[in-house]
Amino acid sequence: MSTVQKIQVAIVGVGLVGSELISQLLAVTKPSPFQIVAVTSSKKTLFGASLGSDWKSSLDGSQTKADIPALTTHLEGLLPNGKVVVVDNTSSDDIAAFYPRWLAAGINVVTPNKKAFSGELSLYEKIVESSKASGARFLNESTVGAGLPIISTLKELVITGDEITKIEGVFSGTMSYIFNQYSNGSPEGPAFSSVVSEAREKGYTEPHPADDLNGFDVARKLTILSRTISPSSSITSFASVQTASLIPAALEGIPTGDEFIRRLPEFDAQFDATRKEAAAAKEVLRFVGVVEPSTGTVKAGLERYPTSHPFATSLGGSDNIIMFHTKRYGARPLIVQGAGAGAAVTAMGVLGDLFKLV
Amino acid sequence: MSTVQKIQVAIVGVGLVGSELISQLLAVTKPSPFQIVAVTSSKKTLFGASLGSDWKSSLDGSQTKADIPALTTHLEGLLPNGKVVVVDNTSSDDIAAFYPRWLAAGINVVTPNKKAFSGELSLYEKIVESSKASGARFLNESTVGAGLPIISTLKELVITGDEITKIEGVFSGTMSYIFNQYSNGSPEGPAFSSVVSEAREKGYTEPHPADDLNGFDVARKLTILSRTISPSSSITSFASVQTASLIPAALEGIPTGDEFIRRLPEFDAQFDATRKEAAAAKEVLRFVGVVEPSTGTVKAGLERYPTSHPFATSLGGSDNIIMFHTKRYGARPLIVQGAGAGAAVTAMGVLGDLFKLV
Ligand SMILES: NC(=O)c1ccc[n+]([C@@H]2O[C@H](COP(=O)([O-])OP(=O)(O)OC[C@H]3O[C@@H](n4cnc5c(N)ncnc54)[C@H](OP(=O)(O)O)[C@@H]3O)[C@@H](O)[C@H]2O)c1
Ligand SMILES: NC(=O)c1ccc[n+]([C@@H]2O[C@H](COP(=O)([O-])OP(=O)(O)OC[C@H]3O[C@@H](n4cnc5c(N)ncnc54)[C@H](OP(=O)(O)O)[C@@H]3O)[C@@H](O)[C@H]2O)c1
Repeated sequence: MSTVQKIQVAIVGVGLVGSELISQLLAVTKPSPFQIVAVTSSKKTLFGASLGSDWKSSLDGSQTKADIPALTTHLEGLLPNGKVVVVDNTSSDDIAAFYPRWLAAGINVVTPNKKAFSGELSLYEKIVESSKASGARFLNESTVGAGLPIISTLKELVITGDEITKIEGVFSGTMSYIFNQYSNGSPEGPAFSSVVSEAREKGYTEPHPADDLNGFDVARKLTILSRTISPSSSITSFASVQTASLIPAALEGIPTGDEFIRRLPEFDAQFDATRKEAAAAKEVLRFVGVVEPSTGTVKAGLERYPTSHPFATSLGGSDNIIMFHTKRYGARPLIVQGAGAGAAVTAMGVLGDLFKLV
Repeated sequence: MSTVQKIQVAIVGVGLVGSELISQLLAVTKPSPFQIVAVTSSKKTLFGASLGSDWKSSLDGSQTKADIPALTTHLEGLLPNGKVVVVDNTSSDDIAAFYPRWLAAGINVVTPNKKAFSGELSLYEKIVESSKASGARFLNESTVGAGLPIISTLKELVITGDEITKIEGVFSGTMSYIFNQYSNGSPEGPAFSSVVSEAREKGYTEPHPADDLNGFDVARKLTILSRTISPSSSITSFASVQTASLIPAALEGIPTGDEFIRRLPEFDAQFDATRKEAAAAKEVLRFVGVVEPSTGTVKAGLERYPTSHPFATSLGGSDNIIMFHTKRYGARPLIVQGAGAGAAVTAMGVLGDLFKLV
């Protein structure tokens, strides 16, 4: 094995997911097929032939400023030694903008960052083209459902010639948690504002809950799925997905999360009426995403499901659940369910992608 | 693309799955990375540089007898042209016995046939060793859950360093169908014998239903999962899995399916008592398989689940459902559900494996 060339891994972004990924990478059974050749935060960079468990203090002590063009040149210089991959663990558009250049140079890209795949179509098309031209791959399993096998399952359905009739799912862990608490088929229950506020205290929402309730995270994931089905799908960016935001109109643009939470109770009655209506029909409320290729439908919003539906019976915690309705699976969809967020499972999805390059 | 060497595919076994696989292979978007270089039934073989949609009549008209050693020699001769893979779509032990030889020669093996991976440990170990030595791969996604992402998901959990605490699932489409009909939480319902007889008429069981009710199919799948977790797992063969057969002792060894079905009503009262007991505890009956690495438990048998459990609420038709409990997923398992049998989805799982070789 020692004669086999290792895959040279550059880690960009060492927050929750990035740090966990490094731990998982360093714990891969020896002989590991990977070596970490660079680590970059937004401030500093550390280069090394093969970084180890002391990476954090070494990075802190590094005198090298973060500089993505310089990192790129460095990695290009490593290509003669074997495969190179950049793992982007940021949520940065600036980093996403580098993917075409990396791919064109023959550097693979693995990432849980949704930005590049759900943003402007022109960037996405450049990514696809650069990858085709050089043969370098981009892998993004963790952008949807974190470590759950969603993207890989979809790719396999598509490449083997199945026909996707509909994808329907709860794609946001935050929205899942909120509505699993809020709506279980009973007409009564906790106030919407109190569920959101509690979710925020537990760290399940963004600091500003409007960043979850706007539905954009789901719209981004649906964009990624649509483009995975058909790269030239008509979605020009996630902003063009039909998204029914849950932010009350009067609370649009409120600058802070604290103020948002303070004013949300004004709208409890409105949410309560929706819950009562659903309960009267023996239904629950779930914030879902739907992709229906034949009609071009791509939409995110609150929907009602019978209390006997898997979205009502099987879902709990902050689980994601995704149903793939296809021609070959017929009347009963292929379903994947489980935690769709969290550093450990997200990093696992990233590491799984890295293993696909071995 | 035309300069890229195609993967040379030899198809052994052209029953339901084999025929469907050929259809799917021929329908792969052009330029296809595959060419079919041989097709073999149990009687005849057809060689060709690149076989097309008239393969069936060509095979019927072929003068070449089926001869696996001769096929092997032929394929060895093709290795200088690029990758070669045998797809075994039989359920034959004789064919499975060839895997070590093929792998040692550098020929990849892709198969939905459970025999090699669930039989004698010595054969399995030879397969693993030959593959390691030559670098040729064996892929068997469709041996468990057909096209559902079960083996690939398990492999990824293992290789990325997650710890499997328990795998629990309904692994047999036939058993799923029977118990979804038989036990829904109510103390009353159709007689067990009538459910089995109806399932047989619909073609959901083997011609001799004892071949399903003995639980061996589930035991084989559990053996495959255990060995995927740890190749040296102590299971010497599927026969050593703790398997609670549903065949009444008095009906063991009954030679024909017809006689078995005729006598099964004698035992309806016994099954009925079990159903009543479960219903009294608000539970349903499901025939499940469990793998628990920490205790070495590998068992198949009838278990009871609360009527609120996904095995009760979410399951229907002849679906498989598999729960992966792991350290990283914590309290809420990763779940995969859907059709775990049928030629179209099984062939899709096989074709998906072929794409992993590209
Ligand atoms: N956490 C999850 O459960 C989860 C699930 C699925 C997908 N994801 C995705 O995974 C990615 C990372 O998530 P996270 O939870 O780890 O976020 P995080 O903790 O906020 O970490 C992001 C890191 O990116 C770094 N960064 C930002 N811009 C950078 C730049 N230009 N160069 C280098 N580093 C830069 C930040 O570094 P500084 O600290 O130096 O500013 C920060 O540490 C995001 O795209 C997220 O959407 C996360
Ligand atoms: N069908 C499913 O839903 C499903 C799901 C998961 C896994 N599988 C597995 O997939 C495999 C194929 O299933 P199937 O449903 O396609 O079975 P099938 O219709 O019975 O086909 C099996 C074929 O194998 C051929 N065969 C047997 N011995 C052979 C030999 N020595 N050389 C060449 N061909 C030989 C038979 O050929 P002749 O006709 O010439 O005798 C037969 O056509 C089995 O291992 C099964 O367990 C099936």
